[in-house]
Amino acid sequence: MTQGQLLYEGKAKRLYTTEEPNVLLVEYKDSATAFNGEKKEEIAGKGVLNNRITSLIFDKLHAQGIASHFVKQLSDTQQLVKAVEIIPIEVVVRNIAAGSLAKRLGLEEGTALKRPIVEFYYKDDALGDPMITTEHIDVLALATSEEVTAIYEGALAVNQVLQPLFTDVNVTLVDFKLEFGRDTDGSVLLADEISPDTCRLWDTTTKQKLDKDVFRRDLGNLTEVYTIILSRLGGK
Amino acid sequence: MTQGQLLYEGKAKRLYTTEEPNVLLVEYKDSATAFNGEKKEEIAGKGVLNNRITSLIFDKLHAQGIASHFVKQLSDTQQLVKAVEIIPIEVVVRNIAAGSLAKRLGLEEGTALKRPIVEFYYKDDALGDPMITTEHIDVLALATSEEVTAIYEGALAVNQVLQPLFTDVNVTLVDFKLEFGRDTDGSVLLADEISPDTCRLWDTTTKQKLDKDVFRRDLGNLTEVYTIILSRLGGK
Repeated sequence: MTQGQLLYEGKAKRLYTTEEPNVLLVEYKDSATAFNGEKKEEIAGKGVLNNRITSLIFDKLHAQGIASHFVKQLSDTQQLVKAVEIIPIEVVVRNIAAGSLAKRLGLEEGTALKRPIVEFYYKDDALGDPMITTEHIDVLALATSEEVTAIYEGALAVNQVLQPLFTDVNVTLVDFKLEFGRDTDGSVLLADEISPDTCRLWDTTTKQKLDKDVFRRDLGNLTEVYTIILSRLGGK
Repeated sequence: MTQGQLLYEGKAKRLYTTEEPNVLLVEYKDSATAFNGEKKEEIAGKGVLNNRITSLIFDKLHAQGIASHFVKQLSDTQQLVKAVEIIPIEVVVRNIAAGSLAKRLGLEEGTALKRPIVEFYYKDDALGDPMITTEHIDVLALATSEEVTAIYEGALAVNQVLQPLFTDVNVTLVDFKLEFGRDTDGSVLLADEISPDTCRLWDTTTKQKLDKDVFRRDLGNLTEVYTIILSRLGGK
């Protein structure tokens, strides 16, 4: 499978066509961004780490029966995925209060929630990705109610697989962001990436942050902590 | 029924005990506030107008089978209400995009929504009344799921009564905010006020704003437009 035309360049990834019309090539970049792109830095090695971690996690999800757009890792920074039309909803699953939730609701960061919660955000940089409800999704016609149900249940199913995966290697899955897409049949499929860029991951014992908050909050070396996550998950 | 001890003073109303333990006296003040209290002004006659309009609307709701805390209008600025424990959720029903919704979702003000939507906000001045979902309500233990259902269905029922009430007098009910409380039996009861302070009301023909946006956005004389609403609803 070879790299074709550049289709799209985002903050952290580039998307290329391949000779297969329904298969795309994703290249992970070394860019780190935060606060809707206001903070930005090039960090050598970040692309390799996120490509490896995402590939490893999507493989584990597949093994547990959770389908995604992921086909296979192609090289250090590249993976093949099924072409999907991304649904413009960022889906956040939270097990522990942190980040914007802690601030918005006045909860202390680290407060365990009595149940996982699923939040939806309208994926729109110009609007600052506002939080939305299922009724806003309906009014904006972002997805059908069947798709919203598939997304909601899919997000909780991913949480059910990821929580023990991380707990077993002494990492607490605080929260994470997912995106979903429609494949060529119109089915809803998990897409995008799952990496320390899109998850909050804390060392269970020391509470050390092993995710993008290290970059957001200037807490240390990003590739060092991403390497810890990769190696704890059994990657190299 | 006589005015007892001051129990609580809010931005727009004072709450007093009466000789009946389950009945309170509400006094409507002449204060207008907006933007979480940042903008503030005394407007002579506003208290009388909101007390009359709210009394009139709660009477119309009662006549349509919608219970509320309202007992009766007592004087120009006073009404009697059943004592309830206010549930700290502001419930917003929207028929047309305006205000924060239009801004947050990038919709043009005045866009008709294909269906009414119900939004919940956490009633907390220090946090700026953030939008919340039913899952946040559960996690924060603000209300039980049965209470949330009663609030949601109650809010839509109020909309069903208010929409034709206003349409019949050439006023468009754009959106409105409700509060609910628990009475001494633990039942959920519509509470607070329903007035041009808590509704967006537009003249259907001219689109003139006949509500607190006149004050928020410095569009003219508040008592003049509140008087239009009172008189169109058949009050004096």
